[in-house]
Amino acid sequence: MRLARLFCPLIPLLTVTPVFAQVPDPSTLRQQIRNYREANESQILQELEALLAIPNNAADDINIRRNATHLVAMLESRGIEAQLLEVEGSPPAVYGELRTNGATRTVVFYAHYDGQPVDSSRWASSPWVPILRTAALFDGGTEIPFPRAGERVDPESRIYARSASDDKSPIVAMLVALDALRAAGVAPSINMKFFFEGEEEAGSRHLRAMLTAHRDLLTADAWLFMDGPVHQTRAPMVDFGVRGITGLDLTVFGPTRPLHSGHYGNWAPNPNVVLAHLIASMRDLDGHITIDGYYDDVRPVTPAEYAALAATPPIDGQLRTDFGLAATEAGNAPLLERLMLPALNVGGLQGGLTGPGSANLIGTEASAYIDFRLVPDQTPERVRELVEAHLVKQGIHLVREVPDSQTRSRYPRIARLSWGSGYPALRTPMDAPASRAVVRTVELALGRSIVQLPTSGGSLGIYHFDEILKTPLIFVPIVNHDNNQHGQDENLRLQNLWDGLELIGGLMARLGLEWRDAT
Amino acid sequence: MRLARLFCPLIPLLTVTPVFAQVPDPSTLRQQIRNYREANESQILQELEALLAIPNNAADDINIRRNATHLVAMLESRGIEAQLLEVEGSPPAVYGELRTNGATRTVVFYAHYDGQPVDSSRWASSPWVPILRTAALFDGGTEIPFPRAGERVDPESRIYARSASDDKSPIVAMLVALDALRAAGVAPSINMKFFFEGEEEAGSRHLRAMLTAHRDLLTADAWLFMDGPVHQTRAPMVDFGVRGITGLDLTVFGPTRPLHSGHYGNWAPNPNVVLAHLIASMRDLDGHITIDGYYDDVRPVTPAEYAALAATPPIDGQLRTDFGLAATEAGNAPLLERLMLPALNVGGLQGGLTGPGSANLIGTEASAYIDFRLVPDQTPERVRELVEAHLVKQGIHLVREVPDSQTRSRYPRIARLSWGSGYPALRTPMDAPASRAVVRTVELALGRSIVQLPTSGGSLGIYHFDEILKTPLIFVPIVNHDNNQHGQDENLRLQNLWDGLELIGGLMARLGLEWRDAT
Repeated sequence: MRLARLFCPLIPLLTVTPVFAQVPDPSTLRQQIRNYREANESQILQELEALLAIPNNAADDINIRRNATHLVAMLESRGIEAQLLEVEGSPPAVYGELRTNGATRTVVFYAHYDGQPVDSSRWASSPWVPILRTAALFDGGTEIPFPRAGERVDPESRIYARSASDDKSPIVAMLVALDALRAAGVAPSINMKFFFEGEEEAGSRHLRAMLTAHRDLLTADAWLFMDGPVHQTRAPMVDFGVRGITGLDLTVFGPTRPLHSGHYGNWAPNPNVVLAHLIASMRDLDGHITIDGYYDDVRPVTPAEYAALAATPPIDGQLRTDFGLAATEAGNAPLLERLMLPALNVGGLQGGLTGPGSANLIGTEASAYIDFRLVPDQTPERVRELVEAHLVKQGIHLVREVPDSQTRSRYPRIARLSWGSGYPALRTPMDAPASRAVVRTVELALGRSIVQLPTSGGSLGIYHFDEILKTPLIFVPIVNHDNNQHGQDENLRLQNLWDGLELIGGLMARLGLEWRDAT
Repeated sequence: MRLARLFCPLIPLLTVTPVFAQVPDPSTLRQQIRNYREANESQILQELEALLAIPNNAADDINIRRNATHLVAMLESRGIEAQLLEVEGSPPAVYGELRTNGATRTVVFYAHYDGQPVDSSRWASSPWVPILRTAALFDGGTEIPFPRAGERVDPESRIYARSASDDKSPIVAMLVALDALRAAGVAPSINMKFFFEGEEEAGSRHLRAMLTAHRDLLTADAWLFMDGPVHQTRAPMVDFGVRGITGLDLTVFGPTRPLHSGHYGNWAPNPNVVLAHLIASMRDLDGHITIDGYYDDVRPVTPAEYAALAATPPIDGQLRTDFGLAATEAGNAPLLERLMLPALNVGGLQGGLTGPGSANLIGTEASAYIDFRLVPDQTPERVRELVEAHLVKQGIHLVREVPDSQTRSRYPRIARLSWGSGYPALRTPMDAPASRAVVRTVELALGRSIVQLPTSGGSLGIYHFDEILKTPLIFVPIVNHDNNQHGQDENLRLQNLWDGLELIGGLMARLGLEWRDAT
């Protein structure tokens, strides 16, 4: 039922009447964009290939700047006013602006142009020499030439290169969608701004300063983030939030030197055991966090969010099979519901030695790395307070550095805490006018209903946008989920780029109209 | 109070009358042995040095055999009938026998002549080039020449070499004690056998076969083990038992590939968390094992054992200081009492990554290495049953190999168990005639009361002696506790060797008489 609803064109869409004479009905516009693309596949891929060929490791200043100036040229060639935005010490962000006569809404299209570092030795081909393959490598794809002018290419082909998905294709999609609208004589319905960040994969360290310094330029009625992949079913998707995060390195201490477990076991405190008890005290096997007050700040799930979750195609069973899991936590509770809740994950556990090197010793320390995934309205600061209060309640003396001998001789149980930087979660209300307008426009653009997620599971430090610009943030991804982003052999499935053109073209042409209706 | 009692000569000892004319009173005998030693320090150390110079890594067949033939020569030079005992595939054990006219008791003096493997790069001097130093290295000891004939040497000097303490010095002490008795014209009071094992440090793999094959030769009224160190206060010590042990490698499984903790955390089971809960379910922070029925088999502590514990000089405070511990488990309960109880130690803990390499992942597996220290009358087999029943009760499906995909898809929680070989504990009753006779004889020999321990904390696979020979096993150590045995810079404090001569000489001369009285 759900799948049927999801994959069938929505009948009412066919009867929509354009509000302005110059905006064709959705299916006509979709066909116009498709016609343009089919006639220009070679040229579009050429532009993408040229951009992918510029190395974009965020740490590589010179090449990062080459990417940025290349992007400025790409914008300017479309008559978009472009410039580099910088603050002290930052790589440049690329900014472009295109006003539309009569438009009352301004939308920023966001993507980042930097990429994760690469380990070339693990790639099947060079990360910065884009390769076209007949299919995914894991499906036996083999290299084929890029199409020549006028030639078309199988849409299941994939381009392999760093940032093929994350995020250079979305950038090309934005600009080609604009080309397609112009070729069809269709005017945008919104003022458009473009913001291409240059250090997202390096932790966006200058983002806050950048947003603050250029607040006037970057103000808009909504930001659309074209980062990340669509749903695992390949269904188009809009999502409205990300989880926050804060990470903790936790080390507990035992004797100052390893002790023979025969001579001193059952007497000297064992840090592995203390650590195990602490972890067990913080969460149960169903993922419920057993720290006092931990759920007090959690924003309740809204009816709109529940409705969206219920309408999402179920993929849990498939994921369990893929991951070799007989069952998941909390009695196979749905993944999407679980992502709406705070999570405590123990990413690492280390103390003494296991396996062939193991010894009958009481070790000197044991460590865990724990990541806390936050939901609105938790804050990293409050989570840290609650966790520390919990540890103190377990009889732990907290320190920030390796304890000195005086501290050790004074406190029976000592833990060293080292918190990583963190940031809060963000969820744009799904029933806000901007949210409803974007969903409606994307559905019209693609002629089908889409997956709407209140939040993705991942964390992203986009709260700066919220805090400084106070603008609704909405995620409109286009790339395939099986793109190996961040890893070796990152790739883009061409059909996702083609669909992205129709999606973005539709947003440019119609969002202003739908938004007016949604207000 | 306790210390005063311990370190003062026992007044009654001075009035003991020798039973046989040829056995001088204890203080006279002690002085005779001392005189002999003081006149022969150079020669004694020369004999020890020559033995230590033969490499004795248990894996080094050729040198192990060189040690054995050297020992046979040392025995035969004293007129002791000696031979090598072997079974298929075993290194030789060295056996010697010396009968005493009129003696009714036969005692085996045990030591092992093989040593732990060495990492020469960590030694201050070559492990098999014995060095004499003015004091312990950690006290700034510097090298001095071995004494020339007739010269004496500071008894706080130490000899550095592999097996200087563990166990080549005890072997030399046995033979030199006999020399000293003969020089004084004192006859032994017992029949004596000597058994020097050649693969103790390699796990005594052929010991059971050896004892079985040579049962008739090795039968005796008691075995005296001169392995291991005296008490940490340097007080002489006799102990009556060892703990048993069985080790477990435990691995729990998560998804078949690492999953992003943002996208799948709180949904996919986390093996680190499962492992932490399992450990926490098995024992509390006070060392109490919370596995059903775990204490059912535990032999109660006897009044004699309690009395011995109470009479032992307290060292817990000093150990806490040495090890940088503000407190120990179970509210600072005494170490010696803790060693009378079963113990569960987590020697190693490993899952995912901590520290600089940590990542926000749900790992595929997590492992612990656990050693279970056993007391009488626990058996490794029963402990394994109880632990496995406990894990099953926690909802764990147990496997012996890495689970295949069918197993993973069927059972939500899977643990792979790999048990090491194990053996039971052993405690000779402290009130047995042999036990009382040995304690009394050692006290008379040294002219002071001694530490008596119902058990040491360590584990030793000596249950074979008990099971096959059905003989009381008593530990009569002589070497210093701070000898670095098994580690680099193993050493012997000379005063311990000198005291050992008086102790062993006393045992040889008087044990038969005291035993007769104790029966």
